[in-house]
Amino acid sequence: MKTIDVCLSPELMHLYDVRNRTVVVVDILRATSTMVTALAHGAESITPFAKAEECLEMKYRGYITSGERDGKKIEGFSKGNSPFEYMDDQVRGMKIAFTTTNGTQAIEKSKEAKEVLIGSFLNLSTVVKYLLLGENNVLLVCAGWKGRVNLEDTLFAGAVVEKLKDYLGPDCDAPLAARHLYNQAKGNMIAFLSESSHVKRLNRLNIHRDFEFCLTPDQYKVLPKLKNGVLVI
Amino acid sequence: MKTIDVCLSPELMHLYDVRNRTVVVVDILRATSTMVTALAHGAESITPFAKAEECLEMKYRGYITSGERDGKKIEGFSKGNSPFEYMDDQVRGMKIAFTTTNGTQAIEKSKEAKEVLIGSFLNLSTVVKYLLLGENNVLLVCAGWKGRVNLEDTLFAGAVVEKLKDYLGPDCDAPLAARHLYNQAKGNMIAFLSESSHVKRLNRLNIHRDFEFCLTPDQYKVLPKLKNGVLVI
Repeated sequence: MKTIDVCLSPELMHLYDVRNRTVVVVDILRATSTMVTALAHGAESITPFAKAEECLEMKYRGYITSGERDGKKIEGFSKGNSPFEYMDDQVRGMKIAFTTTNGTQAIEKSKEAKEVLIGSFLNLSTVVKYLLLGENNVLLVCAGWKGRVNLEDTLFAGAVVEKLKDYLGPDCDAPLAARHLYNQAKGNMIAFLSESSHVKRLNRLNIHRDFEFCLTPDQYKVLPKLKNGVLVI
Repeated sequence: MKTIDVCLSPELMHLYDVRNRTVVVVDILRATSTMVTALAHGAESITPFAKAEECLEMKYRGYITSGERDGKKIEGFSKGNSPFEYMDDQVRGMKIAFTTTNGTQAIEKSKEAKEVLIGSFLNLSTVVKYLLLGENNVLLVCAGWKGRVNLEDTLFAGAVVEKLKDYLGPDCDAPLAARHLYNQAKGNMIAFLSESSHVKRLNRLNIHRDFEFCLTPDQYKVLPKLKNGVLVI
């Protein structure tokens, strides 16, 4: 039986050998949800950057510059990190340079993996089907918040583990914990997450609409994949 | 309101400033359960060692040498890591030198804290009362398994967070996750943990009795505390 494991924070990545695994990077609020949205709406590619300065430079090469620090749009950037900014014709056919507090850092730390995918509730079933048919063991990497564990990424990991439980065995306790939390939360994830620290942070920024959208399963059927350092579908 | 946080793995300790906090180190299966048992049965002190060789040297200074690697007693040591080895008169008045795969390493990483306590289900209520009356913010440090998160330490952290929820506020998502898991598990922790990786490991070693004992709340009223690198009550 293939195995599935969950890395609850990028700070724990050194404990996992990713070279033979399919890694799914998860940053539900909001980096990976926004990446899925942009590619579903016709963006040609997304290049993740860990550093904001390097990302901004790409403006002069015709890229849309996108991202946030601490949940807010970065000065000089074209767009922030809300999925609703990536739904119109502006993004169609465009290349996007993207940097966020947690999500793009998690992608950077996953680069040694056999393959790197982008997961979110918005493309949940597509991710699950791909992992089910794939040949590799799986590691779900939660982006967390500045190294700390967060609930929303853990819930997504739990959803994937739950849906694959008859096909991929847990390799450790983290997938079991994530699955238990998901099963407890799935009836009303919005209520379950209302206490969480990042949701409180986002609500202060007045982006409750983003929060609800990012928790909606299966809005899109795209599966972003890292190829030569660039995300494409 | 004082805060309470949970560090789910010693590998995440660098994310927390412990200098002004009370740290509770947790290694339910079995280091901190065994330490509580030994001190409750009259051991004078327990000196934790990260390295087995240094621990073994203490034999020549009259210490009982105790501990395990990968769940098994270490060659040349007087005792292993089962609480049942520390209940007789042999330990009364004795100094113990102790090393384990995860628990003593977590103590080592907590040494900068304002105070370091030892927690287990066996002394749960005593820990909770002390934290309630104390003045410091609290960090519960789960020893985990070789850096990875485990369920049993997370459940203990969740029990403490749950019992203090009206008095200490969560500082992050990890205490919320731990509390949710504890509330889901508390009706039957043994069944809840039966899938967990460490319980399977221990069952292979034929120590199911240890597992059941270590999950029993409030067998003892002792509160081990680190003083000059040595645990005493």
